[in-house]
Amino acid sequence: MWPTDRLQKLFEIEHPVIQAPMAGASTPAMAIAVANAGGMGSLGCAMLTAEQLRAAASEVAAGSSRAVNLNFFVHVEPDLARHDPGPMRAALAPYYAEAGLGDPPAPTPGAPAFNDEMLEVLLACAPKVASFHFGLPSAHAVEALKRIGTKLIGNATNVAEAKTLEAGGMDAIVAQGAEAGGHRGAFIGAPNENDMGTMALVPLIVDAVSVPVIAAGGIFDGRGVAAAMMLGASGAQIGSAFLRTPESSAPALHKQALAETPDNATKLTRLFSGRPARSIRNRLMQELSAHEGEAAPFPTQRAVIAPLAKAWAARGSADFMQLWSGQAGLRAEAAPSAQIFRRICGEALALLA
Amino acid sequence: MWPTDRLQKLFEIEHPVIQAPMAGASTPAMAIAVANAGGMGSLGCAMLTAEQLRAAASEVAAGSSRAVNLNFFVHVEPDLARHDPGPMRAALAPYYAEAGLGDPPAPTPGAPAFNDEMLEVLLACAPKVASFHFGLPSAHAVEALKRIGTKLIGNATNVAEAKTLEAGGMDAIVAQGAEAGGHRGAFIGAPNENDMGTMALVPLIVDAVSVPVIAAGGIFDGRGVAAAMMLGASGAQIGSAFLRTPESSAPALHKQALAETPDNATKLTRLFSGRPARSIRNRLMQELSAHEGEAAPFPTQRAVIAPLAKAWAARGSADFMQLWSGQAGLRAEAAPSAQIFRRICGEALALLA
Repeated sequence: MWPTDRLQKLFEIEHPVIQAPMAGASTPAMAIAVANAGGMGSLGCAMLTAEQLRAAASEVAAGSSRAVNLNFFVHVEPDLARHDPGPMRAALAPYYAEAGLGDPPAPTPGAPAFNDEMLEVLLACAPKVASFHFGLPSAHAVEALKRIGTKLIGNATNVAEAKTLEAGGMDAIVAQGAEAGGHRGAFIGAPNENDMGTMALVPLIVDAVSVPVIAAGGIFDGRGVAAAMMLGASGAQIGSAFLRTPESSAPALHKQALAETPDNATKLTRLFSGRPARSIRNRLMQELSAHEGEAAPFPTQRAVIAPLAKAWAARGSADFMQLWSGQAGLRAEAAPSAQIFRRICGEALALLA
Repeated sequence: MWPTDRLQKLFEIEHPVIQAPMAGASTPAMAIAVANAGGMGSLGCAMLTAEQLRAAASEVAAGSSRAVNLNFFVHVEPDLARHDPGPMRAALAPYYAEAGLGDPPAPTPGAPAFNDEMLEVLLACAPKVASFHFGLPSAHAVEALKRIGTKLIGNATNVAEAKTLEAGGMDAIVAQGAEAGGHRGAFIGAPNENDMGTMALVPLIVDAVSVPVIAAGGIFDGRGVAAAMMLGASGAQIGSAFLRTPESSAPALHKQALAETPDNATKLTRLFSGRPARSIRNRLMQELSAHEGEAAPFPTQRAVIAPLAKAWAARGSADFMQLWSGQAGLRAEAAPSAQIFRRICGEALALLA
């Protein structure tokens, strides 16, 4: 039996284990598989257009009547006028030349932050759960979503963020330790000074808020879920463990890198998107580590690196590809999502018995 | 009841909780208090002379017949001939001038790594437990200490280090997550690329070795100890929680900084000693962050900073002082060591019941 049922009641789920939203890797099939196995599936929607969001939400609703969490980015829109693209372009020029791609491109806006157009779509979809990365959505969005019964989750990487999210109406808070793969959801304080690990962060946040806390970062099996609950979390969110599943849309080169990588092989980098995110170290990260500070503001750096990543991927190389992974991503299994989910819950329940 | 008794049997202790050795802050009184309360006390001996070690070991033996762990540094001795002190001295010149101290000093060797002279003393003291930071002691030291029945503990920050320590004869291994205060005990791989958090690190090391694993980093109360055991550790090592005790020899300014600091206020820095160590951010760390790479090799950087730290401390400022702290150091209590130890064990046992 689980030591608490706060998340089970809040989200109407059987097990307090959440498959993390991973834009670019999570899919409706993955979220449906986990939801139907009794957990909470999630779908990273940050890169979707309004139309794609509508289609994805329909697919999810058709596949499961249970809780699925739709995730969005609520970052502050970048101000490219204040960014000098010169140093990064100079640093990248030899790599673009090597790949036969001409001059490096300028940063371009890319996918917008969660806005009223997406809110409209979301209100029409009426998901059971929505979650937000990089801060709080606008007050009117929170109010409108709450009015239709959607439960809201925020992401905190320190205590100040957790308090802000609770005050802003979030129904639950992910305490995201620095072990986590992909983007740090930090929004208060300098993002690159933000490195609280899960073991320290979870109990500090649990003590600071009264809404249920979901532990994330470095959790890959039932031991981590049980540990999270001992720390006072009401449940756990797990991402990388699902990256190699058949339901994952992560590129084959990304899946291969996870399978072949030892521990201690990841690093936080701003080179892929402009914000600190944890990736398996590759050639780009190693050779351009001195240029981290020159990355264009999130998410405009994506456009600066994407052609290089694409060109090398076409040659079978992940040297310039974002290889998001938590610190235990090496333990991701090539097995169906539902099977991984059930194994993790079973291990945790046995330890907690 | 504790879920395992591996450490209890190995060290002949009642509770599998270890007060971390903290050179400069742990004292015989602290180690004795924890040992007599049923845990394992530790004494950081890295900065002691042979004579001081003899005196400290006598004091500990007189105060408790139980297990106390004497801790040493086994780093590779620095090669100053390969270091250019120019850039760091130039960066520090304005600060030395501001403090009225003249020119910054050159790096100087400082306390040597654990050597045969210290081994002689240690063999004469015949402690129940000795531990080592930054790698393995020499094979003949391991053999000699094992022959007299001393149990040995090594410190690992990744799986490769843990395997090396087990192969080198260590009886138990501390899995030190990046949350930990003070020096990262890393010795394989680039120290500044080494950031595995406790939540991910502990189960990966547990799966890789057969000796008992002690979780360290970010643990400050019984929740963390219980979580560590869910992760597969046989016990936990706790440091910062003891820094504000009456038995701690940490400077008053250091104790004050811990009491006044919010979460997310620490950072790994090489500026104090030459190796990455976690300290509360202060003026030195903030203003010289661009010069991390210019620090003299461990431990010779100490001599470069010490006069500045001392001069400012005399004026009541911790701006240039090493303020070692784990990520939950803000939770250190100004209470007796034995009381803190008993509270932590009580909380953990209640959670594990």
